[in-house]
Formats: sequence, C-alpha cells, structure tokens
Amino acid sequence: MAGKQIQFYYKNVLADVIGPEHGITAQQLDELAKQTTPLIPKIKDEILTGNSRYGLLPGDPQIAKSVKALVKHFKPKCENLVVLGIGGSALGNIALQNALNPFTYNLDNNKRKGPRLFVFDNIDPAHFGSFMDFITPRLGKTVFNVISKSGQTAETASQFMIVQKMLETRFGKEKLKDRVVATTDLEKGTLRKIATDAGLHTLVVPDGVGGRFSVLSAVGLFSAAMTGINIDQLLAGAADMHTRVTNPDFFKNPAAINAAIQIHYYNRNKRISVMMPYSSALYSFADWYRQLWAESLGKKYFLDGGEAYVGPTPVKALGATDQHSQVQLYREGPNDKIFTLLEIQDFGRKIRIPAPPKCARELNYLAKKDMGELLNAEKKATEFALCESNRPCVTVLFPKIDAYTVGQFIFLFEATTSFAGALLDVNTYDQPAVELGKQATFALMGKAGQYTPDRSYADFAAEIRAKTEFDANFVI
Amino acid sequence: MAGKQIQFYYKNVLADVIGPEHGITAQQLDELAKQTTPLIPKIKDEILTGNSRYGLLPGDPQIAKSVKALVKHFKPKCENLVVLGIGGSALGNIALQNALNPFTYNLDNNKRKGPRLFVFDNIDPAHFGSFMDFITPRLGKTVFNVISKSGQTAETASQFMIVQKMLETRFGKEKLKDRVVATTDLEKGTLRKIATDAGLHTLVVPDGVGGRFSVLSAVGLFSAAMTGINIDQLLAGAADMHTRVTNPDFFKNPAAINAAIQIHYYNRNKRISVMMPYSSALYSFADWYRQLWAESLGKKYFLDGGEAYVGPTPVKALGATDQHSQVQLYREGPNDKIFTLLEIQDFGRKIRIPAPPKCARELNYLAKKDMGELLNAEKKATEFALCESNRPCVTVLFPKIDAYTVGQFIFLFEATTSFAGALLDVNTYDQPAVELGKQATFALMGKAGQYTPDRSYADFAAEIRAKTEFDANFVI
Repeated sequence: MAGKQIQFYYKNVLADVIGPEHGITAQQLDELAKQTTPLIPKIKDEILTGNSRYGLLPGDPQIAKSVKALVKHFKPKCENLVVLGIGGSALGNIALQNALNPFTYNLDNNKRKGPRLFVFDNIDPAHFGSFMDFITPRLGKTVFNVISKSGQTAETASQFMIVQKMLETRFGKEKLKDRVVATTDLEKGTLRKIATDAGLHTLVVPDGVGGRFSVLSAVGLFSAAMTGINIDQLLAGAADMHTRVTNPDFFKNPAAINAAIQIHYYNRNKRISVMMPYSSALYSFADWYRQLWAESLGKKYFLDGGEAYVGPTPVKALGATDQHSQVQLYREGPNDKIFTLLEIQDFGRKIRIPAPPKCARELNYLAKKDMGELLNAEKKATEFALCESNRPCVTVLFPKIDAYTVGQFIFLFEATTSFAGALLDVNTYDQPAVELGKQATFALMGKAGQYTPDRSYADFAAEIRAKTEFDANFVI
Repeated sequence: MAGKQIQFYYKNVLADVIGPEHGITAQQLDELAKQTTPLIPKIKDEILTGNSRYGLLPGDPQIAKSVKALVKHFKPKCENLVVLGIGGSALGNIALQNALNPFTYNLDNNKRKGPRLFVFDNIDPAHFGSFMDFITPRLGKTVFNVISKSGQTAETASQFMIVQKMLETRFGKEKLKDRVVATTDLEKGTLRKIATDAGLHTLVVPDGVGGRFSVLSAVGLFSAAMTGINIDQLLAGAADMHTRVTNPDFFKNPAAINAAIQIHYYNRNKRISVMMPYSSALYSFADWYRQLWAESLGKKYFLDGGEAYVGPTPVKALGATDQHSQVQLYREGPNDKIFTLLEIQDFGRKIRIPAPPKCARELNYLAKKDMGELLNAEKKATEFALCESNRPCVTVLFPKIDAYTVGQFIFLFEATTSFAGALLDVNTYDQPAVELGKQATFALMGKAGQYTPDRSYADFAAEIRAKTEFDANFVI
C-alpha cells in the first residue's frame, strides 16, 4: 500500500468499556464474526464482478482516463464549473470539494487552482435565481456538467432545460458543446439523446451503479479533477481499501466489523446511526454517508403475508460544533444511537493560540496550544463523556486528509453499506419507495398519458389533490 | 397583525388519513387538548416574566435600539463581518443570513447591501486557517463580533484570542475597539472583563436566556441588521406570533397543538422528528431547530431510584433534494418518525422552464412551468407518498419568506419547544450533560487546579487518557 492508512477503532463498543446492558461482550463479538465471515466472499463478488457495484474496478487505469481528457479540454478557459445533479449526482461532488479544497475556494480568486465550483441539487427558484444573476454575466467562462443516468430526473432536467436555452440564445445552438459536459448512460435515455443531438462531450455513468455508489466514477471525478483534486490518489486509496475490505478475516476487515457492529446495535434497538466528523472539511461526507446508508438499508419486507420495515436512520453531526447543540441529547436522551466519530491526526496546519489578556487568567490553559490540539482534546472529551453514559462509539482515524485517505474512506463506507445490507438481508442497491413520489410529481405537473394501464396521470393527479389539498378545518 | 401569517396544518396526522395504527383519533386529539390546555398559562408566564426566556419582550422598542446604534457606528467602513461564536451564538445568525439574504450574498460584490458575513463556529485549524488567509489582507475593513455569555467557551475564547492578538499587532492595542463588538453578559464573566479592559463596544446577552433561545436578542440581531435584514419586521413577526402561541384555546394555538402532536408521537415510539423545508433558504433553520429541540428536551430523569432518559432526536432534511437521499428510508424504513414539512407559497421569483428539445418529448410535461410550481408539486407528492405509507406529517406554510414571517417562525418553534418540555416534564432551559465534556476538555488541555475538591485536573486528565487512548488490540 502506497501511503498511510485510515484506521477503524472499536474498543468503545465493548461491554468492558460501556457495560453489558449496552456494550458488546466477547462472546457476542465472536457470534458477529461467525455470522459475518461467510458474507465476505459474497461482498467481494459484488464489488468486483464485471459491472462493479461501485463503478470502480480497483486498479483499472481506464477509470480516470476519459475524465482527464475532458478536463484537459475544458479547464483552460473555465472559471466557473456548475454541476447540475441531485442525490448521488451531487452529494459526492460536494463532499470531495469540501474535503479536499479550502473553505474559501470559491471566494478567493488568487488562491484557486481551478474554476469555482457550484453544485445545484435543488430547484428552489429563489436560490437558483440568485445564482443565475451571478453566473449570467460570467457565462463566457462557465462550463456546465449535467449528471443524470436517465435524463428524466425532474429537478436536473428542469435546470438543464433552463441552462440549455440560455446558452443557445446567447452563443448559438452549435456552440452548446463548448460549454456542456453530459454525464449519463452510455447508450440509452433522455440525456443521451439530447447529448447526441447536440454533439455534446459525454462521460459515462456505468451500468449497475446506483447514484449513491457513483462518486468514484465519472460522476464524482470530473468536477474533482477540474478543481485540482488528485483523482489518481483518490482511486489509489480506494484500491488499497478494496484489499482491506475483502480480507476474509473478520477481525482484519474494517468494513465487515463496522457493519456487524452497526447492525448488531440496530437489532438491539439503537436505530439511529450518528456520523460526527471532528473536521469541518469532512462534514459533507457525513451527508454523503446519510444517503448511502438511508437509501441502501431503509427497506420494506414482506413477511408472513404482512409488511415489515427495516433500516437505521443516519444522522450527521459536526464536532466540536454540535457539542453545543446535540451532545446534551446524545448523553441524556434515550440510549438509542451508535456513534461514528472521525478523528484527524494531522490537520496540515498549526494555529497557535496566544496568551490571554492579564484580566482573563482563567483562559491561561489555552495559551500556546495549537487549535488542532484543542479540537482533538474535545473529541477525546466527548468520547469519554459518551462512554461514561454507556453510549457506544467507534472512531475512524485519518492520519491526515488528502485524496488518498478520502479515497480509502469512500470505499470503506461503500463496502460497509454492502455488508450491512447483506446482514439485514435487503437489496442494498435498489430504491423502490422513491418511485411513488416521482410519479405523483409527474401527475401534479400535468404529464399526459397513463400512470397505470387502468388510470391516467390526470386521474392520479385528482386523487393526490383531493388527499393533500389544504383542509381549512385543520389549519391554525 | 401587520401582515400575512404563517400557518400550521395538521390534518395528515389524523387516523382518518393515515389509519388508526399510526394516526391520531378524534378522541386522542381531545385528550391532548385536555392535557395541554392547562399548560398554556404556564408557558405564557415563562415567555413574559421579567426576564423573558426568549430574550424578547414582545413589542418592547428597546430590543433593537442598542443594536441599531452599533450598526450605525460600524457599518459604514465594514466590508466583512466575522461572528465568533458556537451553538446558540452561531446557529441563529447563520439561519437568518441564509433565510433572508441571497445565496450569492458573500460572493457577489455588486449586489450586497452590507458586509460579507462569516460565522465561525468550529475550531478546525485547516478551516479557520484558510479563512485567516482570506481575511488577513482585508483586516482594515473587517469587524469581529465575538459572542459568549461567559467568555469561557473554549472554542470562542481561542478564536478570539487569536483575532485579538492579530488586530493588536497590526493596528495597536488602543484601536481594538474600532474593530470588535463583544456580545456578552451585562456585568460579569471573562468576556465582559476583556471588553471593559479594552474599552470595547458591547451588546448584552440577557440573563436567563439560553443560547438556543437567543436569536431574537442582540446575539442574532446585530449580524442580521449589519447585513441589511429588517430586524423591526423580524421582531414584529415574533410579537404577532406571541399573541397566537399564548391563545388559551388549544385548537387555536399553533405551538400548543404542534408540541402536543410531537410529544404524543414520541410517546408512541416515534422518537425521530424530521424537519424538512421545501426551501433552500430555510434549511439552516432546520439546523437551528435541531439545537433548540435536542438540548431542550434530551434530558435525564431520576425515577424510583434509577435513571431514565427522554428526548426526541431532531433530524434535518431538505426538500426536494433529500427525496433523492432520505425518502426511501422515510417511506420504507421503520415507522418511527414524525415529519414537519415547510412549504412556501410565493418564492418571490419565477423561473420558467422552457420546452425541451424535440428529441426529448418525454420532458414536455415540464415545459412552460414555473420552477417553484415544480418544487411545490414535489412537496405535495412527498406528502402524499408519506400518507400512503401511514407516516404522520404536519406542514408549516409560509405565505412568503421575509423578516416578518421568519420572526413568526422563530417564535412559534421557541414556544413549541417550551410546550414540549412542559409535556415531557423536563427542565427545558438547562443543559447539564454538556458539562462533563467541557471539564474533560479543560483537563486534557492542561488546566491547573482542582476539578473537584478531591481531584485535580491533572488526575482527571490521566483518567480520561487511560480510558480513551488507542488500544492497539481494537484497531484495524
């Protein structure tokens, strides 16, 4: 392995630390090993078979090649890169940007090593409109990356139709290809047709890869590479973690043991899984994890003729900030959570706290300390406080934050999700419950034709309106 | 009342809509009324007695006066305003800014009606450092607003010591007062001493007002007024909501009924409360709510000699974005949540979706529609889909987003929290569980002296280290 590895630490879930009522005993841990070990070859297959579930065949040099070719073409004249996407077509891009570029990246024109990056994953007209006001005078040096496997996602399609019209009006139809990259299915779908029609440069969303597992495909890599992130290192980190998460020894496999602990606690009625990075840069990865975990594991069962529902609820929190917001609940609310803390050994920057004024000697304990030392002391203090309240927590330890360790982290949690899905016995890779809301939106927006063979979209819309229209009897 | 009112809508929690297993029957609703009505005078007192719990005596013109005087003094030469605070000294400021100023406020130098606003509520050295790189060449036109009731909050104190040193080195000690506003206790505490010593302009954190209830005091109002937010309208909205949430009729009191529904579901084992604005601008208010709810209601009981734990877990989500991330879980995961959707009638901006290219006729249903119409259709569609899965949801309806409606919203949820605390029979206004982590941080940072009469901080630090040091046997 090419560099420092992130580590997974689980002592603070053990009964020895937090007591038998909430902790895991040595015997229970052995049972988890027995139950999870047989799944390791299965998950190894899911990761590696022909179409990898993660859009990534570790070590394959082709992954980055198509992305780099387009970066070479578009970057020189690009001052603003705008990603149009939602869900898995946005969360990974945002997470990579916030983790690996400075907080002031978009703001500080002197320091940036690529275009400003904007990721638009909502259709709020006030929000989108204020952005349009900003970007319109800058269109000449702006590139749009529209990302949708099907091209039928209503939010992304709407945004793109607005942008396409604006660009064609301004620069002419034939110039659209100079300003748009479409990331979509290789052959089929609405966006592929539009791209072919307009002669756009394209990147591919691989078959079999759900949005939430796509960050290491062209979906996430193009915007990353455009903003100067080292995608080779990102992929190298993922490939090295691949070796670790396919280790047949449960006790040496960080994804297997992490998933086993998470699902064990889910089954013991701790149904909330909190990810709390002690790093502002990694906070958006907690959001990325939130999708990965919720969409993959929140699933309906059919059981003995009835229905059953399963799935932990992921929650994101930020250390140290949320100590002043959530820790009161985390310690004294119901013991219904398992915590994943992210700790950074080296922040890559030291900021020294000076001595306080003489009138404030009570702050002397901070004098000459490093800010990162304070942040890590707060992490240890919170970990200690959680243990004192018998709340289980694990830690993912980053030696530092760079493309290599972030690539490892992504692959670790993708694999953890696959193990967790297998342990819950659900289909980790589908999302059937999203469909009804999509169809209802189509109906409400006046889509023509049939919703089902028996029912038109118009009739369906009438039903939805009847059920959701405001009833004045229940308004205050 | 001076303008349009926000409304609270609760039909979709009723058994008539979502069935008796998960819905509230007419009889249960009457029981909630009976149980909650007697609390209304108590909450009315909590809001209004001498020291209001919310830092706000509705209608009192003094509230805004001191803030406006300082804005007048500092605004003319200020291009950057930096708030140093954490928890309740940051979340309200961030929420007001994102709700009431455009998304591109900091970025677009031509459109801004006040200084850029930065709120620093963490101590990540990489994050803070990249900001320092940005602000250092701009210090001449930068004002810092340090906010801490006690001045002993380690995060804020550290940031401020760094900033104070930097400003004194650059401009001289006697000029500090031209660049710093301290918001702190009227008389006592570390920050008050520092402010007096340096002759700083100050604003007051009122007595008896916890951080999470302080947004309508000088804590939240100064940065809002500096960035052009109409604080009179904000306070007018709060005052008008005050009238509504003290209405003795349960069925006309939106805070009483909202709290009753929330706690009813908590007691029926729906222990997760999701707030999901269909508005990017209001997303940070879900974060503000998250603190309000978690710190106020997550409390330990002593019961029959043992301990019991209570408190719903607040979760924030964003519509429509999180339909592509969380809705799979919300519909097919365990039915353990109550949803609060925020809906905006008028976004104040229309963005028309043009016709799709001819090759993409399947998108015709979007043509000539307004983007806000699509967003609201998605809200209705999600509400419908949740009801179909028998998941309870309420809606807060904003006629539009402005200072007046946001002021109403703040007061509505502060009062809802007070009612919820009373229904759970906890002390809504304290946060005892935060203390251990604070003391542990002091110890780990090498504070001198005694932690308790029996034990020094040094001994306490040794204990924490022993318990949290990495044990190589449990690292992968």
